[in-house]
Amino acid sequence: MKTQVAIIGAGPAGLLLGHLLRAEGLDVVVVERASPDYVLGRIRAGVLERTTTDLMDRLGLGERMHREGLPHDGFHLADGERLIRIDIGALTGRQVVVYGQTELTRDLMEAAADRGLEIVYEAGDVALHEVESDAPYLTYRKGGRLERIDAEFICGCDGFHGPSRRAIPAGVATAYEKIYPFGWLGILADVPPCEHELIYANHERGFALASMRSEQRSRYYIQVPLDERIEDWPDDRLWDELATRLGPQAAAQIVRGPALEKSIAPLRSFVFEPMRHGRLMLAGDSAHIVPPTGAKGLNLAASDVFYLSEALTGWFRRRDGDAVAGYSRRALARIWKAERFSWQLTRLMHRFPDNDAFDRRMQIAELDYIASSEAAQTAIAENYVGLPL
Amino acid sequence: MKTQVAIIGAGPAGLLLGHLLRAEGLDVVVVERASPDYVLGRIRAGVLERTTTDLMDRLGLGERMHREGLPHDGFHLADGERLIRIDIGALTGRQVVVYGQTELTRDLMEAAADRGLEIVYEAGDVALHEVESDAPYLTYRKGGRLERIDAEFICGCDGFHGPSRRAIPAGVATAYEKIYPFGWLGILADVPPCEHELIYANHERGFALASMRSEQRSRYYIQVPLDERIEDWPDDRLWDELATRLGPQAAAQIVRGPALEKSIAPLRSFVFEPMRHGRLMLAGDSAHIVPPTGAKGLNLAASDVFYLSEALTGWFRRRDGDAVAGYSRRALARIWKAERFSWQLTRLMHRFPDNDAFDRRMQIAELDYIASSEAAQTAIAENYVGLPL
Repeated sequence: MKTQVAIIGAGPAGLLLGHLLRAEGLDVVVVERASPDYVLGRIRAGVLERTTTDLMDRLGLGERMHREGLPHDGFHLADGERLIRIDIGALTGRQVVVYGQTELTRDLMEAAADRGLEIVYEAGDVALHEVESDAPYLTYRKGGRLERIDAEFICGCDGFHGPSRRAIPAGVATAYEKIYPFGWLGILADVPPCEHELIYANHERGFALASMRSEQRSRYYIQVPLDERIEDWPDDRLWDELATRLGPQAAAQIVRGPALEKSIAPLRSFVFEPMRHGRLMLAGDSAHIVPPTGAKGLNLAASDVFYLSEALTGWFRRRDGDAVAGYSRRALARIWKAERFSWQLTRLMHRFPDNDAFDRRMQIAELDYIASSEAAQTAIAENYVGLPL
Repeated sequence: MKTQVAIIGAGPAGLLLGHLLRAEGLDVVVVERASPDYVLGRIRAGVLERTTTDLMDRLGLGERMHREGLPHDGFHLADGERLIRIDIGALTGRQVVVYGQTELTRDLMEAAADRGLEIVYEAGDVALHEVESDAPYLTYRKGGRLERIDAEFICGCDGFHGPSRRAIPAGVATAYEKIYPFGWLGILADVPPCEHELIYANHERGFALASMRSEQRSRYYIQVPLDERIEDWPDDRLWDELATRLGPQAAAQIVRGPALEKSIAPLRSFVFEPMRHGRLMLAGDSAHIVPPTGAKGLNLAASDVFYLSEALTGWFRRRDGDAVAGYSRRALARIWKAERFSWQLTRLMHRFPDNDAFDRRMQIAELDYIASSEAAQTAIAENYVGLPL
């Protein structure tokens, strides 16, 4: 098979990129290791920046997102007692929309056939070849046969564990990484959220987050040590701990229910630089990871594919090599700022094993300062709604 | 001798407090371990917040400060290449005034006799007694004789190493402390400053600061390891290093000259809580230390003595015990925020031995973000000019 752009990965990054390129009339094929059901079964974040919702609208695919998504004008920082509201609407003139990544992926997936976006699911053993040449190609195995796609560009939207980043030889790029000494234990339950906006809480027992997928489905998290076992957290213990950490005001509104899903996820900051090698372009989690604090991961994938679609359109329309060459620098300028915000918010809101009493007081002082300063709240809000493209 | 308020320490905190209380008609005696010349020989910071200049003006002692001090509308953050100007005038409507602590102390000292502020210099072996009772007193040795001052209140303005804080028994207070793994090597020289505003630089070789005392006297610093020896830094090596770290723009304007003074100072964050024990009140460095980044030390002493003068005036006018009891909480609310700012700016601008490549990129990303965000600049500026009292 021959195409202009081969995309590896049919998560939100790959599908969004595929649709953006199709909208420009390019030939695109997406290959995905898993089945559609598997892709839709992954439970992920769901706070969309305006940048992300704008892309869906531009594609004419935002209808269900606007109908079912929950627009939020603010969120809360909590210190165990107080709720400090960050009024992102008033401070930035923008909103975010709570809409599960799963739902966004479904919308992109269901529109694919109509828009002529070909997706090959269950493509095994995807491998990249000759990405340093003008004629890269990828191979995969499906139904027992080895298939080959020749493309002018290959886009790696295959996440942190996919083959794309690993196809770049050691020595031509640098990986920056920070592993956090804790994880997030999450619970998903079909109960109304305790608050209609998100609460990020820094309690002396550790971080907690009250979030939601819809008005009837809640998503809560608590910070736990990395070696914690889920078996040690029966639902009741987890609900008790959430009530403590979120503080009395939120606790009074918590509705408990059986866990639909319960899991522990590690936290990582990661940046791979540059994001292009020859004819291979990386986007989203294949090139960078943020800790989930502040919900930047999906939104960064969206801004990446926006930049990448511009670069590739420039190439196929005008053979503009500068646009291709400039993609990495352009994307990374925004990525590093979002990495900074996620890292800072993670440090502000979590207990770190090596924090001493002074560090703890610095967290409290920072929350006090934020509560008292419109400038500090604005700085947080403008990062939360997404810095300009 | 009997007085209403005995103040230990004739540095800026003690003298400013003495004057504020004298202006309210209270009886005050200040005792100081050193001689006037020794006090004036200490070289200290010199960036005054509006809060501090307002106090001098209120006392009618601001005339020379306004004549000789340099009002600054901004300062710079540098990353080795760029200068990022923080326009504090435009962002906050306030200025800071560069005026040496030595000069401020001299103005307060010289006005003492006129205002009936008694200062006992060269008071040795100052000791505090019965501060938990209603009749505290202090003793000191002068000219071979042991003297005693009975007072209703004793104010400890005697710095980090003075006897006041140590008079508070262990167990009734908490000390929070952070020692930084580097020091500042400073040079004072009678040369015009390289820039008319301050430059705080984060170079990959470490922090540097270009500051000044006047238009003809410059004060520069570089971050050095704590075990560095001054002998290893002849003037030329220090000027070379400053030129490198401050970046090409500033380096081109550096005028070199022989060092009037050269020294290495450690950096410390320290807070002692609460700041009152019975009839003993602490103010300034006796209760808290900030690293010099951001020049908050002297200004925090000034806000402390403002709160303290209000508390003591409340007591002597109306026997208002609540004002006395509330002093520590009121002062600490501002102190913790200034501690946070100084700590944050120190972390942003210095190389830490345990920083990895990711941490370094976070510093660069934060400087990039600050350069691009009015909200972030405003947050820095409002802390730099001093948060409201």
